[in-house]
Amino acid sequence: MLMDLKKKVYEANIELQKKGLVIYTWGNASEIDQKKKLVIIKPSGVPYEKLTSEMMVVVDLNGQIIEGNYRPSVDTKIHLDLYKAFPELGGIVHTHSTYATAWAQAQKSIPCFGGTHADYFFGEVPCTRPLTEQEVEESFEGETGKVIAECFATKKPLDVPGVLVASHGPFSWGKDCHQAVFNAVVLEELARMALFTIQINPEIQSIPQSLLEKRYLRKHGKDATYGQII
Amino acid sequence: MLMDLKKKVYEANIELQKKGLVIYTWGNASEIDQKKKLVIIKPSGVPYEKLTSEMMVVVDLNGQIIEGNYRPSVDTKIHLDLYKAFPELGGIVHTHSTYATAWAQAQKSIPCFGGTHADYFFGEVPCTRPLTEQEVEESFEGETGKVIAECFATKKPLDVPGVLVASHGPFSWGKDCHQAVFNAVVLEELARMALFTIQINPEIQSIPQSLLEKRYLRKHGKDATYGQII
Amino acid sequence: MLMDLKKKVYEANIELQKKGLVIYTWGNASEIDQKKKLVIIKPSGVPYEKLTSEMMVVVDLNGQIIEGNYRPSVDTKIHLDLYKAFPELGGIVHTHSTYATAWAQAQKSIPCFGGTHADYFFGEVPCTRPLTEQEVEESFEGETGKVIAECFATKKPLDVPGVLVASHGPFSWGKDCHQAVFNAVVLEELARMALFTIQINPEIQSIPQSLLEKRYLRKHGKDATYGQII
Amino acid sequence: MLMDLKKKVYEANIELQKKGLVIYTWGNASEIDQKKKLVIIKPSGVPYEKLTSEMMVVVDLNGQIIEGNYRPSVDTKIHLDLYKAFPELGGIVHTHSTYATAWAQAQKSIPCFGGTHADYFFGEVPCTRPLTEQEVEESFEGETGKVIAECFATKKPLDVPGVLVASHGPFSWGKDCHQAVFNAVVLEELARMALFTIQINPEIQSIPQSLLEKRYLRKHGKDATYGQII
Repeated sequence: MLMDLKKKVYEANIELQKKGLVIYTWGNASEIDQKKKLVIIKPSGVPYEKLTSEMMVVVDLNGQIIEGNYRPSVDTKIHLDLYKAFPELGGIVHTHSTYATAWAQAQKSIPCFGGTHADYFFGEVPCTRPLTEQEVEESFEGETGKVIAECFATKKPLDVPGVLVASHGPFSWGKDCHQAVFNAVVLEELARMALFTIQINPEIQSIPQSLLEKRYLRKHGKDATYGQII
Repeated sequence: MLMDLKKKVYEANIELQKKGLVIYTWGNASEIDQKKKLVIIKPSGVPYEKLTSEMMVVVDLNGQIIEGNYRPSVDTKIHLDLYKAFPELGGIVHTHSTYATAWAQAQKSIPCFGGTHADYFFGEVPCTRPLTEQEVEESFEGETGKVIAECFATKKPLDVPGVLVASHGPFSWGKDCHQAVFNAVVLEELARMALFTIQINPEIQSIPQSLLEKRYLRKHGKDATYGQII
Repeated sequence: MLMDLKKKVYEANIELQKKGLVIYTWGNASEIDQKKKLVIIKPSGVPYEKLTSEMMVVVDLNGQIIEGNYRPSVDTKIHLDLYKAFPELGGIVHTHSTYATAWAQAQKSIPCFGGTHADYFFGEVPCTRPLTEQEVEESFEGETGKVIAECFATKKPLDVPGVLVASHGPFSWGKDCHQAVFNAVVLEELARMALFTIQINPEIQSIPQSLLEKRYLRKHGKDATYGQII
Repeated sequence: MLMDLKKKVYEANIELQKKGLVIYTWGNASEIDQKKKLVIIKPSGVPYEKLTSEMMVVVDLNGQIIEGNYRPSVDTKIHLDLYKAFPELGGIVHTHSTYATAWAQAQKSIPCFGGTHADYFFGEVPCTRPLTEQEVEESFEGETGKVIAECFATKKPLDVPGVLVASHGPFSWGKDCHQAVFNAVVLEELARMALFTIQINPEIQSIPQSLLEKRYLRKHGKDATYGQII
């Protein structure tokens, strides 16, 4: 069932490790089959070295395991909540990549300090508010999707393809799981550059809205001039 | 004698180097055979390139060499004192990994700033008090076990599987030497993330106790939901 | 057409990736054929893994594509403006290398803190002023060459073979594209060292002019003593 | 002539690159033949990829080339001055390794913050005073040996096997060129750890003299307990 998609999700998970974003089992990638409303996701706690395509778990949007001999990632509920909240998403990635996690732990959004950032994220990478004591008590996995959605009340998720969950780490996404991995790599590099930027100049401000728009729209949307016409 | 365990301890020592935690001879791993009360440990000052399983040294809990043609690690007394103070430990690792050592040199415990930390360490990674002038005079290796034990007066060592020895560096442990290596890698990454976290937000506080408990108990204890049921 | 030069420019682009200065498509190298007034440059948005010599694009100084099946880099106008403003340049490189980009985002010139810097850059690596709102509106790629040229009103471009474009990233150059790559690597390392230098001593000043001259002229100009006489 | 020693010095130079201490031509290693009073040193400006044993240059203590088809390193005079000032040295290394150079550029000695440092350097790694305007005018290479020697008026060079030259970078040494390389690697790691240490705790002080002595003498001198008895 869904063998091609399992292979694709497997490869996306492996790519996370190759790009240096995860050690041990610290990350997961998923993709949704939009027609069948089924999500393929990494099994929980299996080291990348032992992972195979066949181990990928198929769940429905309620979290029921439809196929698979393994328990899905403990972050599955967050993935599912994001697919439900943002129907335009095709793939989602979660990591504990060092610099993005540091911003998440610091509970600070990453300001847009330059063109590298503006090329991929249309504005700051938001950091969620911390969960309340009560939300934690109820279910911190269950409430995480909600606080992420709060951040995107006035943003389009594909224009800002990632978020920092306070005291946790980054989630990123895209049209499919490979684009979600790409955005995870970009986000980690932006987080790294941004830390060094504020260390060099603690007074520095975000770039003006006009430059942000020029840069972002050069690469995205119908008037993009970047890349090849396919 | 104990050939399997020697091989295991040898592999754990090699793993320290592969994971980038040690250069030259700057680290050592050991494991205890709980029935025979014998400890297998790396020989002193032998470069990892020249190390073999056969070179591992067998000592008893008094530090007497039971088998081996090499002198054991100069840190052997600290390992033995930890095995004696914390009978639940099966393996111990010491390194001079860069970021964990920096926190130890700074004489600061690593606060729990997020889920990555809370998944493996149930609260801050404590830093010992500095040795007194008199303790140094007597024997700094001899007194190190004592100041570590002081830190764990109210903690369970397997819940907080590592410590920073002030002005020295990290020790970590686990049920066996491989888990001790795993915790050494985790500790180094937590130390790195924590430095960047305070650089981004010097005012940031530890996560609340309720979140710490939720995260830690998701991965540990009888109600854990993480990973596969074996 | 210009097959040798295409191969050379291809190799320079690949070298950027090998040296760790670019991820994905985040960089470009070009060289000018001074007799024909034609510039060879990387195609836009093509990943380094898929790049071949044949894909290199030939443009004239007005940006007209003379040969090639691909659209040239979106930064082509900046390269052309620099070749026109500084006729002594033979090759140009643009990257988003982490530390140099951080200085550019911080909108700070890199002071000359020591011999490593003075050996290759005769004084600070200047950071351009930010573009005005109006310049951004008109064309940020179009105006970038202009603000770079402003920085070099009183400098010789081959004596200071690189610049930071505010809120964007570094450009470097040389007598050919390989020297431009070399200077991009040097610039990134200087940016890294300079950040650590001000972290260790925020009060530190640039080296005096006399030392700058001694160091730089040891390696450059008719009285150079460095290297071999060829 | 001195083929074995040339090979050894060649290997030491290559090791500098393997250990990540040098890029391009940014470093040099030498060794002295104490009987013949001849020094073997790397040729100037030759990339490591093209280096061979045969290219090593033989000079006498006055800097006269005794054998070799290449010009010796521009830093040769500094090496020679150190061999003359400190007759106990057998090998010398100079690099522009990132963190040690940052401390040199910051014009700060590296305090001894812990055991890693104390195991190899008996006290702080001193930073020379800056050269005066007049010294620079005369000859900055010529005066560098002098300001290094000033730092060691009350230190034994083999107990503190390295120095930071202000606004320049590190020199290290040992009984032969391999030990000098070893100390260059150690110095770079100490410089890195020390930066992170002061970032975590800007108030931190050097370790007390008693601990410094215990640590250092555990590894050095007639009562050393570290390593194997050979």
